[in-house]
Amino acid sequence: MTSIKLAVIPGDGIGQEVVPEALKVLAAAGPAIGADVKFEQTQYDLGAERYLATGEVLPDSVLAEIRAQDAILLGAVGGKPGDPNLPPGILERGLLLKLRFELDHYVNLRPSKLFPGAASPLARYQGEGAGDIDFVVVREGTEGPYTGNGGSIRVGTPAEVATEVSLNTAFGVERVVRDAFARAQKRRKKLTLVHKTNVIVNAGKIWTRLVAEVGAEFPDVAVDYQHVDAMMIHLVANPSQFDVIVTDNLFGDIITDLAAAVTGGIGLAASGNVNPDRTTPSMFEPVHGSAPDIAGQQKADPTAAIGSVALMLDHLGYAEAAAAVDAAIIADLNERDGAPRRTSEVGDAIAARVAG
Amino acid sequence: MTSIKLAVIPGDGIGQEVVPEALKVLAAAGPAIGADVKFEQTQYDLGAERYLATGEVLPDSVLAEIRAQDAILLGAVGGKPGDPNLPPGILERGLLLKLRFELDHYVNLRPSKLFPGAASPLARYQGEGAGDIDFVVVREGTEGPYTGNGGSIRVGTPAEVATEVSLNTAFGVERVVRDAFARAQKRRKKLTLVHKTNVIVNAGKIWTRLVAEVGAEFPDVAVDYQHVDAMMIHLVANPSQFDVIVTDNLFGDIITDLAAAVTGGIGLAASGNVNPDRTTPSMFEPVHGSAPDIAGQQKADPTAAIGSVALMLDHLGYAEAAAAVDAAIIADLNERDGAPRRTSEVGDAIAARVAG
Ligand SMILES: CC(C)[C@H](C(=O)O)[C@@H](O)C(=O)O
Ligand SMILES: CC(C)[C@H](C(=O)O)[C@@H](O)C(=O)O
Repeated sequence: MTSIKLAVIPGDGIGQEVVPEALKVLAAAGPAIGADVKFEQTQYDLGAERYLATGEVLPDSVLAEIRAQDAILLGAVGGKPGDPNLPPGILERGLLLKLRFELDHYVNLRPSKLFPGAASPLARYQGEGAGDIDFVVVREGTEGPYTGNGGSIRVGTPAEVATEVSLNTAFGVERVVRDAFARAQKRRKKLTLVHKTNVIVNAGKIWTRLVAEVGAEFPDVAVDYQHVDAMMIHLVANPSQFDVIVTDNLFGDIITDLAAAVTGGIGLAASGNVNPDRTTPSMFEPVHGSAPDIAGQQKADPTAAIGSVALMLDHLGYAEAAAAVDAAIIADLNERDGAPRRTSEVGDAIAARVAG
Repeated sequence: MTSIKLAVIPGDGIGQEVVPEALKVLAAAGPAIGADVKFEQTQYDLGAERYLATGEVLPDSVLAEIRAQDAILLGAVGGKPGDPNLPPGILERGLLLKLRFELDHYVNLRPSKLFPGAASPLARYQGEGAGDIDFVVVREGTEGPYTGNGGSIRVGTPAEVATEVSLNTAFGVERVVRDAFARAQKRRKKLTLVHKTNVIVNAGKIWTRLVAEVGAEFPDVAVDYQHVDAMMIHLVANPSQFDVIVTDNLFGDIITDLAAAVTGGIGLAASGNVNPDRTTPSMFEPVHGSAPDIAGQQKADPTAAIGSVALMLDHLGYAEAAAAVDAAIIADLNERDGAPRRTSEVGDAIAARVAG
């Protein structure tokens, strides 16, 4: 009997609606995973609701418990925009990013696919003969402008100065670049570095150097480079050209939302915060947020959360079960006709396909 | 007789092809500008070609001369991508950004319009009944991660660390925010701040505070906020909701390329690097680069350069002539049928419409 300890953090808003559907599909995948594998789930109540009620974001004891799990499934965290009791950054820095940093999730994995039947807003992907979009963004998860390194002086005065420091280390860049090359080698053997080397020069140099150096170990992978601003144009005009994209934390945040937008929406975008060294539990979550405006109405699309389960199964070594979940998602998408379905209906439909 | 001293920097690649067309249209606009106004043009040979030939980027003497002009029209600068003799940043930091910083171009003005006839790649803007896109991005031009404040230690070793500092001052943020509010007040009275306040917390706070404070002086302007990643989705799904967007230097760089992409391409996107205090010459340039791959073939679209002339005329106080140029661009776009035209043919056609 293999027992896998799974931390479940539904979070806030639609996170609480999509996570049950993801777990439904995980249960349905049981036979594909193997009769001898059991997921022991522990729910953790974290997010805006807990913070507003108790002032707690991520108590050390909870972090210690989560650290002892094998994997984490997260829904979404975040309260009502502009809530004066919830200043921006409290939950993001204190919970989401804290988990990514503490658990050293240095590979933030974000696949983008134009699924058959998914509604891309791009005219060229309407109707028959649409090209294929199938790439994965390997976003660095522990450095760059995300380290919270900065400060302010003379706050609130006309002489205020606020700084933010982007930190880029050879240690941090090399490991994520190596992971990206390894993924490219198993795919279509193309890697694109995205940065802004012509302006953000120091950080640009370390990324450029390490892509060249690590790339020498992967001579069969073709390498190219795009500025982050030019990527806006490429992702809209010709997203099918990309295979694996490697980039820093902030640029990755931005381009993966655009990738989600052009492939049919944020409701489909799954992600993994992965520690490839497996010394800590990796965390899987939909790219979308808690969407308080539609929360509690069973309107949210749980597909991204379910896709995150597929990424988790793949990471845990159950490639076949992961493929079964992905196939069920695609089959479900193929049958969507635009008629609204309840969150639980989508979960039921995909779970039924996985089960059989 | 009013004499306006105009510095002309064609630059590299297609910059050398689109600038003559822009000047053609400026000449055609003569009567609309006024018989008593003369543009005294001085050409400055700057860019990759000059750097590769002489090692010079922007000699102090040239900068001093340019500073004494009334306005600057720039084509594009940049050599072949990956040219080992032209490391990334040399021209960008040494010429383009140097001009923006030295001349204190704190408002980087980038209007986005879906012109009738322009080919948006978005399905919802195909055919009849298309919504209107008409917004302007007011991008901060002298601060943020663009100041070149950073460095590297242990370069080339596994212990290398590279930093980049984003600098945000109340002085710098307030003035650009005030400019954006003033523009919104003359338009549809809506201002959207774009930032990443949930992660880039210190910088986010100074932007948020100053938008609130300056906004109190403009009670008739409605204010909202979007994270830069969420903007990717909004600009693809519903760009017509925006009126004036104010944002920092890097986020502005990124979202204006996406704005150009969704409104029919970078060949149409004009920009102004403006010093609203008029203590230095403002600089007008197409958003596109030097495009060495199509340079010298008369394939480039000069519309963005011509649109930059309209922005320049407006800045110089010739609103009617600016409107005439804009109207000629729209009329020309309306008649485009997708058949390729030479760069000079487009310039001739627009100039003819302006003339008469
Ligand atoms: C919520 C926020 C901290 C987060 C990020 O910026 O990484 C989100 O946008 C994401 O992409 O997962
Ligand atoms: C070339 C580069 C320095 C510049 C920028 O980043 O501002 C360009 O992308 C732009 O948008 O004008």
